[in-house]
Amino acid sequence: MSKKASIGVTGLAVMGRNLARNLARHGHTVALHNRSEQRTRELVEQFGDEGDFIPTYSAQEFVDALDRPRQIVIMVKAGAPTDAVIEEFAPLLEPGDVIVDAGNAHFADTRRREAALRERGLHFVGTGVSGGEEGALHGPSIMPGGSKESYESLGPLFEDISAKVDGAPCCTHIGPDGAGHFVKMVHNGIEYADMQLIAESFDLLRGALGYEPAQIAEVFRTWNTGRLDSYLIEITAEVLAHTDAATGKPFVDIVTDQAEQKGTGRWTVQIGLDLGVPISGIAEAVFARSLSGSAGLRAASRGLPGPTRVPIADATGFADDVERALYASKIVAYAQGFNQIQAGGAEYGWDIDLGAVAKIWRGGCIIRAKFLDDVTAAFSAEPGLPTLLTSGDFRKAVEDAQDAWRSVVATAVKLGIPTPGFSTALAYYDALRAERLPAALVQGQRDYFGAHTYRRVDREGSFHTAWATPERAEHPA
Amino acid sequence: MSKKASIGVTGLAVMGRNLARNLARHGHTVALHNRSEQRTRELVEQFGDEGDFIPTYSAQEFVDALDRPRQIVIMVKAGAPTDAVIEEFAPLLEPGDVIVDAGNAHFADTRRREAALRERGLHFVGTGVSGGEEGALHGPSIMPGGSKESYESLGPLFEDISAKVDGAPCCTHIGPDGAGHFVKMVHNGIEYADMQLIAESFDLLRGALGYEPAQIAEVFRTWNTGRLDSYLIEITAEVLAHTDAATGKPFVDIVTDQAEQKGTGRWTVQIGLDLGVPISGIAEAVFARSLSGSAGLRAASRGLPGPTRVPIADATGFADDVERALYASKIVAYAQGFNQIQAGGAEYGWDIDLGAVAKIWRGGCIIRAKFLDDVTAAFSAEPGLPTLLTSGDFRKAVEDAQDAWRSVVATAVKLGIPTPGFSTALAYYDALRAERLPAALVQGQRDYFGAHTYRRVDREGSFHTAWATPERAEHPA
Repeated sequence: MSKKASIGVTGLAVMGRNLARNLARHGHTVALHNRSEQRTRELVEQFGDEGDFIPTYSAQEFVDALDRPRQIVIMVKAGAPTDAVIEEFAPLLEPGDVIVDAGNAHFADTRRREAALRERGLHFVGTGVSGGEEGALHGPSIMPGGSKESYESLGPLFEDISAKVDGAPCCTHIGPDGAGHFVKMVHNGIEYADMQLIAESFDLLRGALGYEPAQIAEVFRTWNTGRLDSYLIEITAEVLAHTDAATGKPFVDIVTDQAEQKGTGRWTVQIGLDLGVPISGIAEAVFARSLSGSAGLRAASRGLPGPTRVPIADATGFADDVERALYASKIVAYAQGFNQIQAGGAEYGWDIDLGAVAKIWRGGCIIRAKFLDDVTAAFSAEPGLPTLLTSGDFRKAVEDAQDAWRSVVATAVKLGIPTPGFSTALAYYDALRAERLPAALVQGQRDYFGAHTYRRVDREGSFHTAWATPERAEHPA
Repeated sequence: MSKKASIGVTGLAVMGRNLARNLARHGHTVALHNRSEQRTRELVEQFGDEGDFIPTYSAQEFVDALDRPRQIVIMVKAGAPTDAVIEEFAPLLEPGDVIVDAGNAHFADTRRREAALRERGLHFVGTGVSGGEEGALHGPSIMPGGSKESYESLGPLFEDISAKVDGAPCCTHIGPDGAGHFVKMVHNGIEYADMQLIAESFDLLRGALGYEPAQIAEVFRTWNTGRLDSYLIEITAEVLAHTDAATGKPFVDIVTDQAEQKGTGRWTVQIGLDLGVPISGIAEAVFARSLSGSAGLRAASRGLPGPTRVPIADATGFADDVERALYASKIVAYAQGFNQIQAGGAEYGWDIDLGAVAKIWRGGCIIRAKFLDDVTAAFSAEPGLPTLLTSGDFRKAVEDAQDAWRSVVATAVKLGIPTPGFSTALAYYDALRAERLPAALVQGQRDYFGAHTYRRVDREGSFHTAWATPERAEHPA
């Protein structure tokens, strides 16, 4: 009897292929399957010497090639294609076997699939995989949901192929059913916010100082040696330093300024709204992309009046201020994202360890950053931390950033440079710390026009004021 | 044979009762029905002398009391109760009859119901009704969707009972299937944004000037005599002028500062995200409410560092500036809302007349305002207007508001007063008019980490740069 595979991968486009190669390179025998045979053959031809692959050419052959419990990783398009592949394999599996969806599924779909397959005795693991093609091959950040039992067999394999930071794998069991895909969704939402803040920093340095992209690349390179040290800052410097070969212009100036999106940022905001979590930093980032792509609207609006941009005199001081404002705004964006994970965990009973989430984001994924060491420490020290902003180091950083943060936003506003991300982060911060919010007035308005009632600061219960009468008497509601 | 009713109302809680009374007061014979008989009896006992009511006590009796085509208005809770009532009556009706849902349904549910009932030969009209209890009785703003044919019989009745402005009814046929409920949803979203901007204005006048609520009420009363003349400004002054009888304190100070919401604002943002329309003003308003209600988060954050609030010296000048900033931000909020209606109309093929929508919002509804005369004129003059901001009067107003708008936001930022609504409106404005946005950098980042490709300003097609190679050659993608 021939050797069996410890795991199988079906769907061998670039992400699936690289995951399979990563597994094989780590000494695991990997069964391969793809809808069209060509991709399976190519993988073995090109990369067969990297490890032990078992190419298969039918669903049955694929399943038969696997050790028990069988573990099948599906890497196909989210939505109907994923359902189709699940239905192809589920009937061939036996109780205790594990189906893993490593695509970008909506966590609600993952919850539905997990429940349906659990009924049939199968484990279904929706897992986030971040790091793109390169990450999949060299070590991604992996966020598996599903049952604890499934993680017993799957966890060691996934930890093995994940990125490592200080020797620790960037993979942990996130929680039951859709928890993994939920956390991956919020990861992407935070990524949107982080990218928007970086983009605004670039725009500020250019608009307020008149710096060229190559100069700004140097600023980002410097920042990358400090507390902002991160993959996104690093590649921003690379992109800004790049010169377009065809025109000799800065690369960033020949790219169409309409940012695209694939949907996970939008999902994050929509789910945040359902959960009632204020995640304005992520929302503004998503809207900034859709605004940038609204070509007709922008073309019609280009002539609208605004201030003349007069360069700031103290360039170095301003650049330092932008660094502080960026760091403070970044803390807000992450605070909001982690609050959303808390809220999702509470809503769905997932019991997510936020410190563990921060820890596995330190490597492999797009938002990997030195900063996440501190986030990990903050949540490890206080798992129920209400917000990152109140944790020692971050509170201190935000305190130190106060004047710079406010000055940068005020400057942007005066010069007419759009900074929706910086502005919303600061407004969120000021609203959080406010003793009283004007929401009390909103409650009064709502009671006036819709008899929606209000609560009082000094008594229990709901009340309504008879606004239409001269006495305006208050009644318990 | 006894006289038949021209319309029937089922669901006689306060909204349904008041709509029925409004119809009867206008000389229409109204059949009445309610799940529990008590409410039907009470309506006739208390208000029977206001007009011709036909109380009925079974579904069959209700249907038999109606002239043809039968027109049944359902006013029950959105969701399953609405479906249940539809299923109760639909089997008793005949082709050409009309079922009207006057509740706050999600437009997607209305589309589903309309399609299902159309199959059965029935007209289904989802209609927005705004104005609360008082509006329902004295003249609401009515936004019916559904077929043109249904509006032929229903329109005259609804126009009759709607609010009137300059003699024109605040009711028009919005468009097919879910168009009415969609427009009502956006109406509510705009209402959220408008209320948030007013609340921020109050907070600014108090925080920056140290004004008491009664003083601020006077400021709003003055504003209400000018271009901000509107129902919301009017009731804001009333709420702020009100003194709590029990404590002798300003009413607004004894109300818990946690704003509640019923969901239509959240829907507006979620649908705006699906449609790719930047409606950040509405989003910030929804998030401001959820933040205000995040009691634990706020309690933990109260001690966070911030600036001391030093009162502004020139009080009158600042109040005038806030008026300008409020007006400019309000134009942005409405511009975003109307863009969402445009986008929804395009997505679902509704062909909505934006001028007609603005016109029927001038009276009866919560956002009724003098300002909507100008909005009506703007869209009537140019039905395809890309944004309100470029229309003559509004462009002029925003131009005049420039310095004040920027100064108010900068002051808020320096004093630590949260103005997410003002800030996002200004950021949106500056992004719209920007020659170039840093979205180009975002596209570069996306191509770097995910090979998502980019477009060029000088050539057609999609491109990818081989970032991992020293040459960084560009390839068509």
